[in-house]
Amino acid sequence: MHKVQKIAVIGLGSMGFGIAKSCLKSGHKVFGFDTDQTRIDWFVSEGGSIGSLPEIGNCLDAIVVVVLNAAQTEDVLFGPDGAVQFMKAGSLVIGCATTSPEFARDMERRCGQSGVHFLDAPMSGGAMKAENGQLSFMASGSKEAFDAASDVLTASGEVVFNLGDSAGAGSAMKSVNQLLAGIHIAAMAEALTFAKTQGIEPSTFVEIISQCAGTSWMLENRAPHIVDGDYSARSQVNIWPKDLGIVLETAKSANFSAPLTAIALQQFMSAVGMGYGEEDDAAVAKVYARNAGITLPGVV
Amino acid sequence: MHKVQKIAVIGLGSMGFGIAKSCLKSGHKVFGFDTDQTRIDWFVSEGGSIGSLPEIGNCLDAIVVVVLNAAQTEDVLFGPDGAVQFMKAGSLVIGCATTSPEFARDMERRCGQSGVHFLDAPMSGGAMKAENGQLSFMASGSKEAFDAASDVLTASGEVVFNLGDSAGAGSAMKSVNQLLAGIHIAAMAEALTFAKTQGIEPSTFVEIISQCAGTSWMLENRAPHIVDGDYSARSQVNIWPKDLGIVLETAKSANFSAPLTAIALQQFMSAVGMGYGEEDDAAVAKVYARNAGITLPGVV
Repeated sequence: MHKVQKIAVIGLGSMGFGIAKSCLKSGHKVFGFDTDQTRIDWFVSEGGSIGSLPEIGNCLDAIVVVVLNAAQTEDVLFGPDGAVQFMKAGSLVIGCATTSPEFARDMERRCGQSGVHFLDAPMSGGAMKAENGQLSFMASGSKEAFDAASDVLTASGEVVFNLGDSAGAGSAMKSVNQLLAGIHIAAMAEALTFAKTQGIEPSTFVEIISQCAGTSWMLENRAPHIVDGDYSARSQVNIWPKDLGIVLETAKSANFSAPLTAIALQQFMSAVGMGYGEEDDAAVAKVYARNAGITLPGVV
Repeated sequence: MHKVQKIAVIGLGSMGFGIAKSCLKSGHKVFGFDTDQTRIDWFVSEGGSIGSLPEIGNCLDAIVVVVLNAAQTEDVLFGPDGAVQFMKAGSLVIGCATTSPEFARDMERRCGQSGVHFLDAPMSGGAMKAENGQLSFMASGSKEAFDAASDVLTASGEVVFNLGDSAGAGSAMKSVNQLLAGIHIAAMAEALTFAKTQGIEPSTFVEIISQCAGTSWMLENRAPHIVDGDYSARSQVNIWPKDLGIVLETAKSANFSAPLTAIALQQFMSAVGMGYGEEDDAAVAKVYARNAGITLPGVV
């Protein structure tokens, strides 16, 4: 029953590249698209294919959209050169960017007008997990969308949470995860710098807290970056004003007050304002350090 | 070299009772003190001893103070019937309540005036861990204090973090842990109720988030209470205005701005104001639920 699928991955950043590679590994023909030619060259050297959407669009089984945000997703799907106009009925779009549930529902509706299925499938995990086929997808969509997505999800995902039979629920779950993840990074930064004012070094902080009730997944993942003074971006500060902004917009539509989210967003905004937008998101600790007049490891 | 120590445990709440029992199990003679006679009767039925401090104070090797706060600690040590006046030089006080670092330093100084060692040893873990000898202690104090505390810490603790050679550092580390733990409980409540506004049930929330980057120790421990609609107090809402208040006071003394801590404290204060002070601290979710007009499992 298994056939080689023709898949396009739009956006070859670290996550998209990982998904594209894991689809290649599982034997599919994969076309890569990116605005950055060096990424495309790299992808071709790994066995990937290239083409133009007007030419190959009609032969694709699925396209996976792994761009930064809603605006880019809309552009690659429905802009002047958008993919959907070239796709055949019954093919599939998998939307992986973190967007609002409302936007995901709109994409499902508009894809449907062209007879194209849409799976709302934001993901959790990093570049390494993407390449090793170990991502988590928080997905929702029609049975047809899930069926058509099966090969891609199997190739790149370790866990697929099925949140329901229409778009929106997957993005809602991702928002909930981002609410927590963003607060936990900022809380880690608040705690680590507070500890420093009390004479507790960052390395001691990580060693002890990771064994206590105050720990979190994000703390254990990000606090070591501060201990090492290494702010090369695994995940950028810039992600958080966007993702927590989506949470707050969605919350506002539901008349939901989310004060911790609002404060965490402000701390990340301060980090962006200080010029750390493209650094690792652990750099939110530099906001606290500046305010308190303390020095973090490796920061001059 | 091992001798049976005579130990007094002051405060037989769930944590103190657990510590007293684990000291009994390891063969020591343990005197229990509490304002609640039923707890004392219970302790005696478990093999514990009773007495009055003026009579037995001089024969004690150590007293373990497991009361609620700084005021109670000061009262049991230095009040009119306070223990220290009856204790012999070279004996030990172990302070386990969550207090400010400054208060712990003051206790060390005043115990020292009577020739009594003081170990600043707040703890992490619950009643079950206390009874099974699995607590974590965040301790600081002189070498003499650590040596004298060895039997008690071995009996009731699984991990002892040695934070330095004078009181204050242990309490500072505990404050750091409480900062995180308090924020993480409130963040869990914010996320779980936000999820509910998006049609995601609390049980689904726990199942998925506990496998994603948004998880925390507190989320995995407390969110199931909300799913079960069970607010019987393992740890009371009332703890948090106190403990986060200590964090904010300590932070203020260090000119440290802790905005997430401040907001978490306000959410717990709202829970107290709504009459949930003596419920499990997961009841902070009821604040969010009321504000958003949503219903939590088992809550009428």
